[in-house]
Amino acid sequence: MTETFPEREFTAEQIDAGRRAYELDRAHVFHSWSAQEPLDPMTVLDAEGSWIWDGEGNRLLDLTSQLIYTNAGHQHPKIVQAVKDQAEALCTVAPQHVNDARSEAARLITELLPADINHVFFTGGGADANEHAVRMARLHTGRRKVFSAYRSYHGGSQLAVNITGDPRRIPNDDDAGVVHFLPAYHYRSYFGPQDESWSEKEEGERALQHLRDMVVLEGPGQVAAIILEAIPGTAGIYLPPEGYMQGIRELCDEFGIVLIMDEVMAGFGRSGMWFAHQHFDVEPDIVTFAKGVNSGYVPMGGVAMDDAIYGTFAQQVYPGGLTYSGHPLAAAAAVAGINAMKDEQMVENALRLGAEVVAPRLEEIKDKHPSVGDVRGVGLFWAVELVRDQTTREPLAPYGQTAPVMNQMVAEAKRRGVLPFMNMNRFHICPPLSVTAEELEFGLDVLDEVLTLADESVADG
Amino acid sequence: MTETFPEREFTAEQIDAGRRAYELDRAHVFHSWSAQEPLDPMTVLDAEGSWIWDGEGNRLLDLTSQLIYTNAGHQHPKIVQAVKDQAEALCTVAPQHVNDARSEAARLITELLPADINHVFFTGGGADANEHAVRMARLHTGRRKVFSAYRSYHGGSQLAVNITGDPRRIPNDDDAGVVHFLPAYHYRSYFGPQDESWSEKEEGERALQHLRDMVVLEGPGQVAAIILEAIPGTAGIYLPPEGYMQGIRELCDEFGIVLIMDEVMAGFGRSGMWFAHQHFDVEPDIVTFAKGVNSGYVPMGGVAMDDAIYGTFAQQVYPGGLTYSGHPLAAAAAVAGINAMKDEQMVENALRLGAEVVAPRLEEIKDKHPSVGDVRGVGLFWAVELVRDQTTREPLAPYGQTAPVMNQMVAEAKRRGVLPFMNMNRFHICPPLSVTAEELEFGLDVLDEVLTLADESVADG
Repeated sequence: MTETFPEREFTAEQIDAGRRAYELDRAHVFHSWSAQEPLDPMTVLDAEGSWIWDGEGNRLLDLTSQLIYTNAGHQHPKIVQAVKDQAEALCTVAPQHVNDARSEAARLITELLPADINHVFFTGGGADANEHAVRMARLHTGRRKVFSAYRSYHGGSQLAVNITGDPRRIPNDDDAGVVHFLPAYHYRSYFGPQDESWSEKEEGERALQHLRDMVVLEGPGQVAAIILEAIPGTAGIYLPPEGYMQGIRELCDEFGIVLIMDEVMAGFGRSGMWFAHQHFDVEPDIVTFAKGVNSGYVPMGGVAMDDAIYGTFAQQVYPGGLTYSGHPLAAAAAVAGINAMKDEQMVENALRLGAEVVAPRLEEIKDKHPSVGDVRGVGLFWAVELVRDQTTREPLAPYGQTAPVMNQMVAEAKRRGVLPFMNMNRFHICPPLSVTAEELEFGLDVLDEVLTLADESVADG
Repeated sequence: MTETFPEREFTAEQIDAGRRAYELDRAHVFHSWSAQEPLDPMTVLDAEGSWIWDGEGNRLLDLTSQLIYTNAGHQHPKIVQAVKDQAEALCTVAPQHVNDARSEAARLITELLPADINHVFFTGGGADANEHAVRMARLHTGRRKVFSAYRSYHGGSQLAVNITGDPRRIPNDDDAGVVHFLPAYHYRSYFGPQDESWSEKEEGERALQHLRDMVVLEGPGQVAAIILEAIPGTAGIYLPPEGYMQGIRELCDEFGIVLIMDEVMAGFGRSGMWFAHQHFDVEPDIVTFAKGVNSGYVPMGGVAMDDAIYGTFAQQVYPGGLTYSGHPLAAAAAVAGINAMKDEQMVENALRLGAEVVAPRLEEIKDKHPSVGDVRGVGLFWAVELVRDQTTREPLAPYGQTAPVMNQMVAEAKRRGVLPFMNMNRFHICPPLSVTAEELEFGLDVLDEVLTLADESVADG
């Protein structure tokens, strides 16, 4: 089958240039979220569609979309051309002026969102988008407290990482006015038994009651916003139970709390809808985005706000900003990216492949491998959760850590031509939304094969 | 003289497209630091070198470098080509992998910095660069407090704006572990009389004593970092007195405090040196940058750290990161930008034009206009401070506010073909470093002319 996959030949000079890049990286580049000296990063020489090529010229199917952001695929010719054209026309204009690419990007983005969301504040990425969303909510309500979920990720800058509810927050913990609540996470319920006796409906109801209890106990008049990922991403791609999101919307309405939906990872088609909250029939007050908005071809994030939030800053100064807000090059990539995703029906493709290819295959994989505890997702946004024991659900790696066998599986998958996304005890399957069924089947075949390593690890005890 | 300046003709369609961009901007784009409805932003149709063209096709000399960042000028052909080439080759690679443009950018940047600064953590802009610098200093020292100056600007995200010491902090004020000290600002001294009897030497000594007193009273063992702009930018381009920076370096050494130099605006040639701290013969522990690193052609910032800070994270995880760290497109623009600035000796050009053209002309302007209180700067980084009275030094606009005549002067300068940078009671003169003497003289002529409006305002009382 693989003869239809793209081929690349690299010259000795190109391979050497990659080695020189590696040496300079180790000498001068400081990497995110890492101890620096043990790192042995992979060099990327080239990319196309769903594929990348490593420093030795090996082709890898990119099930990571890098960091779940190349939604339109690598080196999409229309987005590349738009970046080149905008660079030729006008690389940069300061945010206080008007630029046509920025204007059109804002129009296209608001068009995809609820009717009363009409304005976009562009940022540099997802972290500062969430920071500004919180600031707007605080100034809009005159309240300080922000509620966010444990097992969430909202970004790496100081306020964003404090809003985050994963282990990366802990070394950065500060008094940021954030209250963390327990999420609805059926497979690893914080509210009921972690077995078949506990229904998703019960999980949703109890989780909602827990959130309401906390809001009441913290004082609803103190709560500016509830921020949550429409579908939590890095934290485990666990979908909210039916009714949960609507319940949060009602809670916010009851107490005048701003509902901020973080669509940084889930948005722009990843879940098989333009925005993940559209699966749950709720309308947020603020939507934050980044990543898929332009497939990360140029850094960009943003805050889309409804008319009520905008109204607060119609005559009153919004005390926030940044030099690269609405950068023309990033905006041009967003315009081309959104149009390409529409023209090529990538969002529909994601929804269909998720339902027709990924879901049935992962169910088979779960039945076959004793190390697989749970499979879940929608669109091209899937998690495979590995366990030591399917009955106790003990994770293969403890919370916040990894396990040697996880790294062995990544190495083995790469040897077989697939780059997987791994976090703690989970694989995430998040290829570009332009992926083909054939590519996806190849990736799932390899995942199926390498899971025997996890099975052996579990069997060894 | 103006016949040597670049010309553009715009078609009716181009003008109409600009009007459409304006309408969409007003309908959908939320702007930084503003009440939204009163805004009437200028459209930018094109740009080249030191010039931009507005929505009606009028040519304007860009004394703002947009937001003081297009250091290599607008649409520099080599940077444009590098962006196009990188877009064609490989738009994006996630930060955990190796990319040749990122590696080379890190090498070039560290080469310009002190010998023990060898690593760069790339960020999305200046704000998150400062946030990560503070986080590194806190984790490196195990201390929390950060000292920063009043009358400073360090960025718009939550921690960065709290570090900032200008009026924009106030509506965002939070418990961020920041202690603000009074800066050495000779013309508006906080330590001695604001007249000729108070020497710059006295200002420097007293300001240093004040900082030392505050550090001692806050507890030196609690202080992680002192962060300051090598030359404060938006806050007024006021140069530190001789010996002040060295005194801060000694204070940091005495108490084990990390010295963070914010070179976001002053760095990459703006002051006529590659970095402004090089004027003062001090070596910071951390240097933050953005803007001029690639002239803002693609969003990028960064933290350059010395080997001691790096060493803290050699085996211990640095708990911070971001998706667009070391973005290839931004890195390619940095490589091309730095090389172009070297090849065309732009930094030397900035130093020479500052000394030979700007300094003597601004002294003349100060002597001629009763509304001009102070002129100061270096390289292509200059402030003209306007006053109601040269003796009392009462500012033409109160701190944190503007005055109608300031806006009238901006409008009049634009009518005469010059886009000035205005903040409170000051004009800043910050053209691209590729500006010619002839262009600069044209800009200073116009500034000289419009200052008669300020003179009249002052005479009216």
